[in-house]
Amino acid sequence: MAMNKLMSRERTFIDLLKPLARHPAARGLMDDAAVLEAGGMRLVLTHDMIVEGVHYLPADPPQDIAWKLVATNLSDLAAKGARPLGVLLGYALDGTADRDAAFVDGLRVALEAFDVPLLGGDTVRMPDAAPRAHGLTAIGEAGGRDVPARSGAQAGDILYVTGSIGAAGLGLAMAKGERDGSDAWLQAYRRPQPRLAEGRALAPLVHAMADISDGLLIDAIRMAQASGLAVEVDLDAVPLAADAPDDRAARLAAVTAGDDYELLFAAASGLSLSQPGLARMTPVGRFASGSGLTITDKDGVVTPPARLGYQHDAA
Amino acid sequence: MAMNKLMSRERTFIDLLKPLARHPAARGLMDDAAVLEAGGMRLVLTHDMIVEGVHYLPADPPQDIAWKLVATNLSDLAAKGARPLGVLLGYALDGTADRDAAFVDGLRVALEAFDVPLLGGDTVRMPDAAPRAHGLTAIGEAGGRDVPARSGAQAGDILYVTGSIGAAGLGLAMAKGERDGSDAWLQAYRRPQPRLAEGRALAPLVHAMADISDGLLIDAIRMAQASGLAVEVDLDAVPLAADAPDDRAARLAAVTAGDDYELLFAAASGLSLSQPGLARMTPVGRFASGSGLTITDKDGVVTPPARLGYQHDAA
Repeated sequence: MAMNKLMSRERTFIDLLKPLARHPAARGLMDDAAVLEAGGMRLVLTHDMIVEGVHYLPADPPQDIAWKLVATNLSDLAAKGARPLGVLLGYALDGTADRDAAFVDGLRVALEAFDVPLLGGDTVRMPDAAPRAHGLTAIGEAGGRDVPARSGAQAGDILYVTGSIGAAGLGLAMAKGERDGSDAWLQAYRRPQPRLAEGRALAPLVHAMADISDGLLIDAIRMAQASGLAVEVDLDAVPLAADAPDDRAARLAAVTAGDDYELLFAAASGLSLSQPGLARMTPVGRFASGSGLTITDKDGVVTPPARLGYQHDAA
Repeated sequence: MAMNKLMSRERTFIDLLKPLARHPAARGLMDDAAVLEAGGMRLVLTHDMIVEGVHYLPADPPQDIAWKLVATNLSDLAAKGARPLGVLLGYALDGTADRDAAFVDGLRVALEAFDVPLLGGDTVRMPDAAPRAHGLTAIGEAGGRDVPARSGAQAGDILYVTGSIGAAGLGLAMAKGERDGSDAWLQAYRRPQPRLAEGRALAPLVHAMADISDGLLIDAIRMAQASGLAVEVDLDAVPLAADAPDDRAARLAAVTAGDDYELLFAAASGLSLSQPGLARMTPVGRFASGSGLTITDKDGVVTPPARLGYQHDAA
């Protein structure tokens, strides 16, 4: 499958790490986060790095880089239904003190928005011309006994997604100067919103859950693979961002673009949540016995695109 | 003081972060680690990054880079008397798959040596020519109610250090090809040993504790400053590594070289530990009312060197 080729070096490395991660908390390095039982609690731990020119554009404002670093890690906690307890920052000083201060400003705004304290971390210098690499660790507390995994979907389950898909991909194209468009798309790319409230409400109800970082299709396939199932995605059912272009090519672009940070989950059909104020939850597919991905739309089966998800190439 | 100038950009950045870290678990960003009360436990959390050409030499074997990344983070846990529960890795893929595999090999050896599981993390690509940056988060559980801080030393307390000082600095000079010397020194630089057992035994007995990462002098001054005290260091009392050169210049080099990862702590005089198998604990100074550092040896007061600790310049 395409993703094997796309991400072969990362996959090879993770395969090498797996024998070091036999502790059940590591979940075989297959999940969005580690889930560690400690003192009667279920701690949820995640660490993501972002690299200049790979995960963000050198011209992106430092405030947005900080926001995104926080939001993407909290999105991993959201996918486990966890309440954030705090974060640790690993920061490489930027080219100028002004950019450092702008980063701290964005970090403050993000941490206040999600009501999460900074607990600690590390600050390093990198050689002057080097692209910057930053890391963030988020620690959270899971709400209930069962913390949803990427695996666990059952044959017959519906594949749901929160919110809408594709705005961040359109926003990235805008940030690169490749197209014009809505400010909301640019905002979706630069200031993603982790679905923390949705994750906590959904955790007791779902069979499997993950966040969408690399694209709806690739994250759906990963969930199907981890669950030992096949998955069918109805392209016409995918909820697109407001004002987004809407034809087959645009829909395929949306489900392969990545950076949405919506929640993708498997649950029995007829899911209903009584809690007000949550994002809409849209059924977009179905799990079945077997393996592989089938994409359909109103005209029948759609040939899967060569590139199923976001590839972290240097921009 | 020299350290203000040495580390001004890092200090400026950390000062900017402090308003974001008002949660008591952050300890004002002044300690080796965060201490988070959760579920009746005291979780100890630390995150350190290492950068090629800054914290390690490009020619250092990947196995040793991995070891050092683990050991330096566990050393922060040791300084809080914490038992490690696990680590999360943030890894930038190296130039070749062989180097990645060698890193994993070193990681495996280190995690087995300290009996710590890998819980998760992230793998990223960096642009080809970029220096690599890796991060590690360690999470531990503190033993008792009181988790020692960098602050808390009392006037009249003795300043103690575990093990010996200076071998890693000599080993770094060997690794750079600047001198010949004992293999044990090179080993001390490349494979530091966090003082986990000593930290757990000492935690209930000390008034303040930190690990020595940047040099005995600079870490002693930080402890004195955090405690609102002056500190006097007896240069002749500092325990040097076996076969190390021993004159005033060599002793000043040893106490400013860094990378020792011994524990430095303040305790009442007459400290005695009944537990067998621990490293020796040597009194090397004393805290008093006031502020500042005084260095003495058998000839009287020694002028402090211009450079009090390790400066993380690009190598």
